[in-house]
Amino acid sequence: MNSNIHTLVIAGSGIAGLSAAVYAARADLEPLVLEGDEPGGQLTLTTDVENYLGFPDGVGGMELVERGKEQAEQFGAEFEHVSIEEAGLDGQPLQLRLSNGETIRTRALIVATGASARWVGADGEDELMGYGLSTCATCDGAFHRGNDVLVVGGGDSAMEEALFLAKFADSVTIVHRREELRASEIMADRARDHDDIEFRWNTELQSLRGSREEGITGATLVTHPDGYPKQKAKNGVDVQTATVDVGGVFYAVGHTPNTAFLEGTGVERDEDGYVQLRTAADGQMTSETTVEGVFAAGDVADSRYQQAVTAAGTGSMAALDAEEFVETLEMTDRNVANTSV
Amino acid sequence: MNSNIHTLVIAGSGIAGLSAAVYAARADLEPLVLEGDEPGGQLTLTTDVENYLGFPDGVGGMELVERGKEQAEQFGAEFEHVSIEEAGLDGQPLQLRLSNGETIRTRALIVATGASARWVGADGEDELMGYGLSTCATCDGAFHRGNDVLVVGGGDSAMEEALFLAKFADSVTIVHRREELRASEIMADRARDHDDIEFRWNTELQSLRGSREEGITGATLVTHPDGYPKQKAKNGVDVQTATVDVGGVFYAVGHTPNTAFLEGTGVERDEDGYVQLRTAADGQMTSETTVEGVFAAGDVADSRYQQAVTAAGTGSMAALDAEEFVETLEMTDRNVANTSV
Repeated sequence: MNSNIHTLVIAGSGIAGLSAAVYAARADLEPLVLEGDEPGGQLTLTTDVENYLGFPDGVGGMELVERGKEQAEQFGAEFEHVSIEEAGLDGQPLQLRLSNGETIRTRALIVATGASARWVGADGEDELMGYGLSTCATCDGAFHRGNDVLVVGGGDSAMEEALFLAKFADSVTIVHRREELRASEIMADRARDHDDIEFRWNTELQSLRGSREEGITGATLVTHPDGYPKQKAKNGVDVQTATVDVGGVFYAVGHTPNTAFLEGTGVERDEDGYVQLRTAADGQMTSETTVEGVFAAGDVADSRYQQAVTAAGTGSMAALDAEEFVETLEMTDRNVANTSV
Repeated sequence: MNSNIHTLVIAGSGIAGLSAAVYAARADLEPLVLEGDEPGGQLTLTTDVENYLGFPDGVGGMELVERGKEQAEQFGAEFEHVSIEEAGLDGQPLQLRLSNGETIRTRALIVATGASARWVGADGEDELMGYGLSTCATCDGAFHRGNDVLVVGGGDSAMEEALFLAKFADSVTIVHRREELRASEIMADRARDHDDIEFRWNTELQSLRGSREEGITGATLVTHPDGYPKQKAKNGVDVQTATVDVGGVFYAVGHTPNTAFLEGTGVERDEDGYVQLRTAADGQMTSETTVEGVFAAGDVADSRYQQAVTAAGTGSMAALDAEEFVETLEMTDRNVANTSV
């Protein structure tokens, strides 16, 4: 074990982790950023970001991440390409076992490990993600004025994405693998009542057509009257295949917050795994988790908005809260030292 | 009265209002932004912003505001140089009486009117604000490595600013007009116990020395053993005058949220006037106020962090919440219309 105790470790190097790193490094906390399995986070999957305030001509997702990292490094933040395997958070110092086998100790921890959008496993998705294939209608909907688009999913977020996209796209087709929606009645009604939204029931996306240069041009869908057609095809059951011409495909099959390493640590999570944050006495939201010295920022604690700019905001909040925590801790240490003289 | 009903009005054109405008305009809500008395908000008082994620070389406060406005306008947001005098928020549509005498109506309102840092009225403060004189240690502290600086104020935020500045500055002197602090015991102790922090009791800042080119070079202080020296001098009582050489001066005499126009509207505020936000059923913070269709973003609802990047984040949250509200409203209208056919 490294005998050195860090002041602050930031888990995750997406927008939230980077913004926390900028604030913490500027406050002389010398943060160590653990980059995680997906350095740069979800934004690296987006080509153009038009809604992050400050970039009137837009900015590339990867470019924004790189700019943020450069900014954090300029103030002295350090980056290591590892993730947390296991965390011991009951008492000071906090202990973190890393994916490289090392165990490190720290005064404070900011969890900014994000939430990964689920993919459906269609052929071509690796190549086309960010090039017509997207996991965020709010981010990329405006690029699809006049297009026909598909939304894959059957929950509330799929309905939301479809309704949002219907403002821009000529037509929106919701592709759902069963013939019943998981969405709430109100959201389902809204989608059903919309003139430009159609449904393809018992249908799944098999493959995407297109290229990074021209974007998405079409998709192949499979259908079986009993639902779950891909599983059926795998079992040798005949399914119906159709190709459609579309200009965009949106995955809305949910996000999974990356919080498995918090299992059993006392950091409270909701039923979907998102970190729960504490409200201050005056009713204002903080970045504090239910464990002292552990803070959270970005999508990992936000199932509602999940925007780059909200992640940047909460990252800064977590760094400010961590700074105050560390200061109190040092004060207490100093008082204890004085008393024992 | 203008018979046209707006979909969304955003009150305030600081970072929160601009970020809300970008999101709302991109979602085709055609927002009207009321710029208010201080177009661009608090950030226009800051020369260099180093901690807004995405700008590794920093960005000027005014420049960031201008870039944000350009971005919002590109998506169709409209700006008008007026403020709200009075608001009627009980029931749809919301009604707003403006400073130009006009009354407008809107489906939804985002309150992003900010909180103005209080100034102390020293000679030279108009010229030097943003040039060595600052109202935000977190923002500008890092520019003062090796400097001697003054902090004006006696509350918790003055102690916080002083402690933060002590990381960078050679010495920090807290200037307070009485000989007792308003700060909490713990914060006061921390400041008193710090080797690099001193106090000047019963003292006020009379004037600043310096220029926009060289920044602040010194200050003139007045002292009277019974406190409130400036008031005493005004009444013809002799006070003691001293000049000090300092490289920076920080005002920490509080912020006033700009929420007077919400008086009597049902929008709940805390004792300092900050707008109270609602927590969602799952424990997550929203931008919803206690009045339906009225949302808040930025410093006006945030007495805790008040950063540019947090304002940008909450601005986007308010626009997303407002968009959902308007959609539900339109849905209801449509259903009512269908029923009455």
